[in-house]
Amino acid sequence: MIVPRIIERKRDGGRISDAEWHELINAYTVGDVPDYQMSALLMAIFFRGLDGEEMYALTDAMLASGSVLDLAQMSGPRIDKHSTGGVGDKVSLVIAPLVASLGIAVPMMSGRGLGHTGGTLDKLESIPGFHTDLSLERAKSQIEAIGCAMIGQTGEIAPADRKLYALRDTSATVEAVPLIAASIMSKKLAEGLTGLVLDVKRGSGSFITDEKSELALARAMIDLGARRDCPTIALFTAMDRPLGFACGNSLEVIESIEALRGEGPDDLMKVTYALAAEMLFLAHKVSKPDDAWPMLRDAVASGRALEKFGEIIEAQGGDRGVIDDPTRLPTAPFHAEYQTPRDGVVARVSPRVVGHGIISLGGGRRTMDDEIDPAVGFVIRAKPGDHVKKGQPIATVHARDEHGLAVGNRALAEAILIADAPVAPLDLISHRITATSREKWKAPPGSRHAENETEPDGVVLIPPPV
Amino acid sequence: MIVPRIIERKRDGGRISDAEWHELINAYTVGDVPDYQMSALLMAIFFRGLDGEEMYALTDAMLASGSVLDLAQMSGPRIDKHSTGGVGDKVSLVIAPLVASLGIAVPMMSGRGLGHTGGTLDKLESIPGFHTDLSLERAKSQIEAIGCAMIGQTGEIAPADRKLYALRDTSATVEAVPLIAASIMSKKLAEGLTGLVLDVKRGSGSFITDEKSELALARAMIDLGARRDCPTIALFTAMDRPLGFACGNSLEVIESIEALRGEGPDDLMKVTYALAAEMLFLAHKVSKPDDAWPMLRDAVASGRALEKFGEIIEAQGGDRGVIDDPTRLPTAPFHAEYQTPRDGVVARVSPRVVGHGIISLGGGRRTMDDEIDPAVGFVIRAKPGDHVKKGQPIATVHARDEHGLAVGNRALAEAILIADAPVAPLDLISHRITATSREKWKAPPGSRHAENETEPDGVVLIPPPV
Repeated sequence: MIVPRIIERKRDGGRISDAEWHELINAYTVGDVPDYQMSALLMAIFFRGLDGEEMYALTDAMLASGSVLDLAQMSGPRIDKHSTGGVGDKVSLVIAPLVASLGIAVPMMSGRGLGHTGGTLDKLESIPGFHTDLSLERAKSQIEAIGCAMIGQTGEIAPADRKLYALRDTSATVEAVPLIAASIMSKKLAEGLTGLVLDVKRGSGSFITDEKSELALARAMIDLGARRDCPTIALFTAMDRPLGFACGNSLEVIESIEALRGEGPDDLMKVTYALAAEMLFLAHKVSKPDDAWPMLRDAVASGRALEKFGEIIEAQGGDRGVIDDPTRLPTAPFHAEYQTPRDGVVARVSPRVVGHGIISLGGGRRTMDDEIDPAVGFVIRAKPGDHVKKGQPIATVHARDEHGLAVGNRALAEAILIADAPVAPLDLISHRITATSREKWKAPPGSRHAENETEPDGVVLIPPPV
Repeated sequence: MIVPRIIERKRDGGRISDAEWHELINAYTVGDVPDYQMSALLMAIFFRGLDGEEMYALTDAMLASGSVLDLAQMSGPRIDKHSTGGVGDKVSLVIAPLVASLGIAVPMMSGRGLGHTGGTLDKLESIPGFHTDLSLERAKSQIEAIGCAMIGQTGEIAPADRKLYALRDTSATVEAVPLIAASIMSKKLAEGLTGLVLDVKRGSGSFITDEKSELALARAMIDLGARRDCPTIALFTAMDRPLGFACGNSLEVIESIEALRGEGPDDLMKVTYALAAEMLFLAHKVSKPDDAWPMLRDAVASGRALEKFGEIIEAQGGDRGVIDDPTRLPTAPFHAEYQTPRDGVVARVSPRVVGHGIISLGGGRRTMDDEIDPAVGFVIRAKPGDHVKKGQPIATVHARDEHGLAVGNRALAEAILIADAPVAPLDLISHRITATSREKWKAPPGSRHAENETEPDGVVLIPPPV
């Protein structure tokens, strides 16, 4: 293997063989291929792409670089959900206990905040005592015992991906669909899943903002899942505004607990139920996703979902009392209401501006070494389309000090646009992408899906039942 | 300066400012910007290109990273010739003493063999005792004393370029027109020239093989020269076959000495005179290049050109006796004639195959650390279009041992194609490119150029007077 010749071939539009991918990734992981060759190759991939076989070989090589969560001896379904990242997206905190409370194992491996987006690990760690750095062995025991573990990517999982990800972050090669797909799936496939649901975020607050790339990303991940016997379904959900009201680590845990009581914001409940319904469908608990909704509502209404969250918190060393008394979570000492500057309609709530606002308050990282303040953030109750009056309080800033209040207020003034007429927001859930173009897994038939639009390549875009 | 943002901007089709180029190249030279960021940027440049201002800023920054040959106190013209590289291209060895013998200073900085091509330094070093590693100070004294020095790129010249070049070589980012142009010109502009002639090689044996890139490369270098008050002219010459007969270091020195006696192969003499005529024109010795030919022929016929070569050899520690007795150069102990396998017409002599054949014989490098055997190589007397009989000896292999003879024979059998009908070779010298689109320097008028074809952007393609 002569690395410059491989880079050259990709640069000129050629392909890299399965054997070359494995050799390349192995050599890179142990340091035999230097970063400067890998970053040049990554940039060539940004421009030239990877075909399906190449993407699979890369994913497989990254997966093979580390250990996996061996859950094969568990007889039941093992389903996870993954989001491509957003602001106010606390779905993982709600969906993991919700689905686990229905007897489905949820081995959930999450990440930290990246760029303007929050991270599930950071949110969970705002619960006093909560540990996310479990070993694979301990995570396995916990999943066997209570059906769920919520952990970070350990050093054991896909070390090649971790090394590559750090390189991509510093060499401007993050935004390449095949690299994103391979990175996500090399970790998800290490969880020993029998099914995976993807929440592909759309709109200004997501990492990939053009429709063509969103579909390409979803299809790439679905394809990678299918090749490894992990049936995968994707929903496209809106990230042109924050999800729910709360944005900030501790604030989002509080809202998650409310959601587990059935009292979360409407958009958060809908997205959570829709994704959870797909998880139940992949677990063969229902014959079509629609049928899962009553079961999910019941798990919430009965208190079983919240109880399961308490079990998870306790198992991971956290203060279980927070589920009954959220004031045991870190709270910020300074609060201020944000009032609308004029009469009108909410035309936009920018997730990026809100996300960067959280970072400015100290609730997110500028560099990977930053400590974060879990208590700070925003609760933004206004949604695009809402009619508001001048002076109406529509959001709250939670800050560490007076200066933070001013910083937060400025961020909200920039993020929230009040106009004379409404601007149509994206559909909260716009499409459902399945692998119907492959036979290994079949999309569910459904009477409410009679008017499906079928794309030429076999991707079925199905309006979801919400 | 946040480097990933700069890479990202270039990746997405934006531009890098003058100040950013200088900061970037300075930081890279001292090691503050890591190789992995620079190689990603280079690959982005491969796909996105650089505009004229960016290329100039990059060249200027690389030039500013080191010292220059300060010849400003010399009152006369200082002209160099640069070739983009080929096989059998020993023009530098002939043209430097030839032009210097006519009272023009020739500060010539050359390179080593690269890929399948030979290098002037390697050829010169086959002369016993010849040193090419002069300091800038000593080169300056020699140029002042005898009008010419033939040296390598010292550590003092454009260290940023040397570091970048090594990175490009190992990250598959060599073949990018703006990077090639900036690299060449950052070294040439360090020679303190008043004019530069470029020999842009065309055809299968050159590094850039498509016509559009050849013209873009010539124009880029002409533009960079004009911006630094170094009028630059380019000739397009053929590299779809080796130049002259001899291919191999010592063999090419012997052929150069023959050329300096006026007895070189016809194609070598023509290309040398055409390029030298442009040098005399740029030195204001003639009002049009055509007028230089009689002067050049006279310098050869009188023995002054060869005498100048002897002076240069002596000044740089070499054995001056070689100009009268070429057997004092290294010779290979084994020779064998290559005979044509059939009657027919020579349809092709592949420079790449010949070049790689020299490497196989030990006369070139596979890695930069390889020692080379100066004596080995080929003398290929057949040219495309020649009619040949079966069994006719048309080339000689010069090898270190019997095995080398077999290796060389195989290389020639692959390189030389005999066909039933001739295949039209490229014109030996096809175009003359000047900076007529800029006013700083004007192309010479000439009665023989009445039918010039003018391209829309002002580049004049002029058939040369040969």
